[in-house]
Amino acid sequence: MDRDRSAERIERDIETLSGAAYTLSAEAIRRYAYTQEYRNTLDWFTRELEAIGFTVEEDPVGTLYARNRPKGEPVFGIGSHCDSNRNGGRYDGTMGVVTALEVCRLSAELDLDLPLQLISFLEEEGSGFGQMLLGSRIVAQRVDEEDLRDRFRSIDDGRSFWDHAGGAGYRPEQWLECAHVLDELTGWIEMHIEQARVLQDTGNRIGLVTAIAGYVHADVVVHGRGDHAGATPMDFRLDPTLPLAETIVELERLASDAGHGTVGTVGEIDVDPGIINAVAAEVRFSLDIRGPVDDAYRGVAGEIAAFAQEAARRRGMTADYRERQTLPSTPMDERIVAALEDAAKATGEPYMRMHSGAAHDTMCVADRVPTAMVFVPCKDGISHHPDEDANPADAALAAEIILNAIQTLARA
Amino acid sequence: MDRDRSAERIERDIETLSGAAYTLSAEAIRRYAYTQEYRNTLDWFTRELEAIGFTVEEDPVGTLYARNRPKGEPVFGIGSHCDSNRNGGRYDGTMGVVTALEVCRLSAELDLDLPLQLISFLEEEGSGFGQMLLGSRIVAQRVDEEDLRDRFRSIDDGRSFWDHAGGAGYRPEQWLECAHVLDELTGWIEMHIEQARVLQDTGNRIGLVTAIAGYVHADVVVHGRGDHAGATPMDFRLDPTLPLAETIVELERLASDAGHGTVGTVGEIDVDPGIINAVAAEVRFSLDIRGPVDDAYRGVAGEIAAFAQEAARRRGMTADYRERQTLPSTPMDERIVAALEDAAKATGEPYMRMHSGAAHDTMCVADRVPTAMVFVPCKDGISHHPDEDANPADAALAAEIILNAIQTLARA
Repeated sequence: MDRDRSAERIERDIETLSGAAYTLSAEAIRRYAYTQEYRNTLDWFTRELEAIGFTVEEDPVGTLYARNRPKGEPVFGIGSHCDSNRNGGRYDGTMGVVTALEVCRLSAELDLDLPLQLISFLEEEGSGFGQMLLGSRIVAQRVDEEDLRDRFRSIDDGRSFWDHAGGAGYRPEQWLECAHVLDELTGWIEMHIEQARVLQDTGNRIGLVTAIAGYVHADVVVHGRGDHAGATPMDFRLDPTLPLAETIVELERLASDAGHGTVGTVGEIDVDPGIINAVAAEVRFSLDIRGPVDDAYRGVAGEIAAFAQEAARRRGMTADYRERQTLPSTPMDERIVAALEDAAKATGEPYMRMHSGAAHDTMCVADRVPTAMVFVPCKDGISHHPDEDANPADAALAAEIILNAIQTLARA
Repeated sequence: MDRDRSAERIERDIETLSGAAYTLSAEAIRRYAYTQEYRNTLDWFTRELEAIGFTVEEDPVGTLYARNRPKGEPVFGIGSHCDSNRNGGRYDGTMGVVTALEVCRLSAELDLDLPLQLISFLEEEGSGFGQMLLGSRIVAQRVDEEDLRDRFRSIDDGRSFWDHAGGAGYRPEQWLECAHVLDELTGWIEMHIEQARVLQDTGNRIGLVTAIAGYVHADVVVHGRGDHAGATPMDFRLDPTLPLAETIVELERLASDAGHGTVGTVGEIDVDPGIINAVAAEVRFSLDIRGPVDDAYRGVAGEIAAFAQEAARRRGMTADYRERQTLPSTPMDERIVAALEDAAKATGEPYMRMHSGAAHDTMCVADRVPTAMVFVPCKDGISHHPDEDANPADAALAAEIILNAIQTLARA
């Protein structure tokens, strides 16, 4: 296999899809469903896939899928998403679809003629309607009709998803049929940039994902008592920033001790009233607690909720803990991971098994199909930003590994 | 002395000055310089003071002062301010001027004829021009002409203090002469609500202020590294919320251990970018560190600055510490405090010596005149809010104590 040629093609494709016709912004990649720039992107993939003999279709809301076998015959799924964050880079999602296209090209050029179906999911980033993984959730039927008809509304103009899909020529009233996109898949592999710095910092070129983290998103509100910062002695205070501080320190300890890749983050802090000369009356902070092992991260969530409440109580205050959202982890299919690992080993290049801390469309595919993911490094872990950077040579290596793994799985 | 009658008069006066003619808001007391409502308030005090034989004048920017002795003769100063916080209550400032008025009344009624000068300072709260203690700083010449001509601008319309003072019929170009307001004072006592809950919670009706706290206002910025909250393992993070948390906990310890009434508060916290699923890139937080003993609170400021920088360094980050403002503490005059204590003791009512954590006009008067302050409780320490509440009977008790102390000092 000519890995350099693959790298050149992937680089050229990424360059093409960063051109003015494919992004709404000159400073970033900004591309989302039902815009002309998104349409141009699907048209480009359609032309490239038809050129190597694939039949390209779009489901009733605009998920692109392309096969080299007639309907009814089993195929192996590969792909990702080609929409971007509103202030996005060139690689998140798109490099996965481009690499899947390269796998299709290699299969044709090398006369392997593997049974393949490429999928490019819609609205993974939520840039159009504020809903992450929207396309794959529709395919997995993780939404209901009211969501699509009414609740999910355009960030730009407030009109419903339903209106926008219809206006773009799709048939949202047939959305239940989107499920058929997965009907004949015998397996699924998504390649994606890592969006963190583990591969870079450990010197690995390939990450084989063994599970996608589940998570708990929650808020803690500590009710203290607003007081004059100068006039209130230390032992007369009910200062809610203290339970906040103790909880931040304890969350780091609990998440680190829990192991199994568990992480915990306080990303939002609101202080009321938030002025220099007032002891706060109330503090709200968010908790993002994740990991590939449900018992581990859920244990941390339970322990930190209890800790925050006890930290408040110990100081004569109260704290409320409320979960916003929770989603279980998604284990990858060990048979596919093992096939990828054999293929990775055969290249002699450095790789590692890891989990994904970020969510991906593959979580929805996994409801019905054995799945796996392959990560490639991105520079300094930067993602969702115009500075996002990744190496086409790593993507070419991933394409080779995916191709060889699918070959092995097809033979078995 | 008929303390009940004093309490009734003080209650009636406070009630009057809470009427529609004296506040810009129906929901709160909102009163500041150069508004009709502030003018009405000065006019009301003028009528009441003239009725008991005082000569009332206003200095070139609108400080009201009233004397029962001709210019050139020594007088003892009493008073406070009668402007309010924008969302203020009835008592902060105004109850001090009303109580000073009651002292003048008692001196006349009881034929004591003490040599007195009542002062009502301008713009203590900064509601007009965003400048705290503005009137007393002008009297103390702690501002310069550029401040008044150009830098200090109206919150409502952006026009300069100079314009507004001129427009209201004053002579701002003669502002240097405002210093003469203090020329003949042999001493000064300001009564004020405590604005904290120490008196209430310790069961004292009177606080004798021994010093007004000095302070350091500063900001700390911790520079971390923004990362994906799901994809970044705990040991790959540079999370600036951790040094923040450790500093909050340490500040409580340092301020408590420093004693001498030292307090330390983190009142503002800004997290960048401040979203649930992102490890913060940067955190800024404020420090308000005060106390009546300069070495004690300044020591805490120095230690916490070093601690925050070390807490960041230990985790591979950096932190900047920048002072916004610092002001030394103001000791009260022990001779006046002792006279007040003798008078308080004689009433048999519970009192305590304490310091003021909040700033007051008395800090500026103290530049040139021996000063003291008397605090009365306010309910639950609530101030700068329409719910502010205080007991006219405590103010009447304060009036009696102040009157007797001035008598003692005049005799000595």
